[in-house]
Amino acid sequence: MKIDCRFVPVFADASELSGKTAIVIDVLRATTTIVAALEHGARRVIPVATVEDAKQLREKSPAPETVLLAGERNMKLIPGFNLGNSPLEFSEQIVGDKTIILTTTNGAQALVRSRAAETIFVSALTNARAVALAALDKGKDVEIICSGTELHFSLEDTLCAGYIVHEILAVSPETRLTDGARTALLVYTTYGPDMNVAIKRSEHAQALINEGFSADVAWCGTLNQSSVVPVCRNNSITLDNSNFVSSTDVN
Amino acid sequence: MKIDCRFVPVFADASELSGKTAIVIDVLRATTTIVAALEHGARRVIPVATVEDAKQLREKSPAPETVLLAGERNMKLIPGFNLGNSPLEFSEQIVGDKTIILTTTNGAQALVRSRAAETIFVSALTNARAVALAALDKGKDVEIICSGTELHFSLEDTLCAGYIVHEILAVSPETRLTDGARTALLVYTTYGPDMNVAIKRSEHAQALINEGFSADVAWCGTLNQSSVVPVCRNNSITLDNSNFVSSTDVN
Repeated sequence: MKIDCRFVPVFADASELSGKTAIVIDVLRATTTIVAALEHGARRVIPVATVEDAKQLREKSPAPETVLLAGERNMKLIPGFNLGNSPLEFSEQIVGDKTIILTTTNGAQALVRSRAAETIFVSALTNARAVALAALDKGKDVEIICSGTELHFSLEDTLCAGYIVHEILAVSPETRLTDGARTALLVYTTYGPDMNVAIKRSEHAQALINEGFSADVAWCGTLNQSSVVPVCRNNSITLDNSNFVSSTDVN
Repeated sequence: MKIDCRFVPVFADASELSGKTAIVIDVLRATTTIVAALEHGARRVIPVATVEDAKQLREKSPAPETVLLAGERNMKLIPGFNLGNSPLEFSEQIVGDKTIILTTTNGAQALVRSRAAETIFVSALTNARAVALAALDKGKDVEIICSGTELHFSLEDTLCAGYIVHEILAVSPETRLTDGARTALLVYTTYGPDMNVAIKRSEHAQALINEGFSADVAWCGTLNQSSVVPVCRNNSITLDNSNFVSSTDVN
């Protein structure tokens, strides 16, 4: 088994993902929000690229009252949307049994670009160990895909990637690492012991803190508070690997 | 002054480079080869994307006997070319006063993608300190661009990037670092003390060693053996920042 890590979601050829297990990470905040939504009973999360796509998809739904629009642009709530991109908003009371249509700048793009993979897991720091074990269980080569920030390297995603490498190696020490996976592991072993300080120092966290999202940053930096393993198939993210419902069938 | 580092040559928008000093790195081997060529008296190096582009550009030359075709595909010499992509081939006897047209898989692409920058310096480990000082001298924000390997992270380019960050900080400790620049610096401070071992362990070096290029890997990993500072303008790389000749005028 081999682990690779991409620090931005670009590939020379999508077929590089073929037959592999992809793990998509956007710690601040899309994948942390997806984990929170599913942990709190959302039926599924559908990532879309644009605000217009989100609105159109809800309009097509036969039961729009069960669909919530969520997301952000420049870290802020989108007019007409039910929720932003803060995991703290996604309580059981609000998202239980709902379909969430989520549009974000980086995480949604990374998920879309990863669709050639055999399995796509969605990871944040909040559920990273559970995802690492699920990826191990698949037994395929692993491609960890950091969403980054507008094709820019993000420390917080890399920390999460490095933690996943660390957890896989703990169980399967003979796993081979590419240069990228080794570097993610180095970032984790260096900054991991003081994870929250490292996350807070990252560029993206600083921007969020300046916008008043300190509580989000703290939540997103809290390791393994959840054991859910979201799976993305045909652009629909659920906890259920078997009873798949397509994202084109919103309800 | 701020330093950023990209681990693959992709940008959300080329205008991100506007007004900045770009430093393009492809340690194994394109930028090391460019440094060797100019150090040994080549008049200029013109990076091109394809084998066909290289041949056509030489055909257009009024004095084709002063033009050498160089490059590789899958690490190997291209049929009909004068030189491969090994810096050891670029001796004064062979390249002195010649124009070199160079086509490589990663470095040439990175140079082309960086053209929106105000200044583009070409760096390898062999001339990294000279480039760091030249970038400092410009006084503009610095974007270090690792060529990587087919949009894949490369440890050897990152080591070079981290060394450049280190050298700039040594002179200008108040320089601000992005997450990417901090991570490159971490890679250098971790692996730098045993640079040659680290380079040899990288994926790309292993592939070159398997193809019989061990001597190249050793040469490419030898820090600061040159003090030339190649500058790329309108896709022509020279040591002369003032007397610019366009790449469309081959001789």
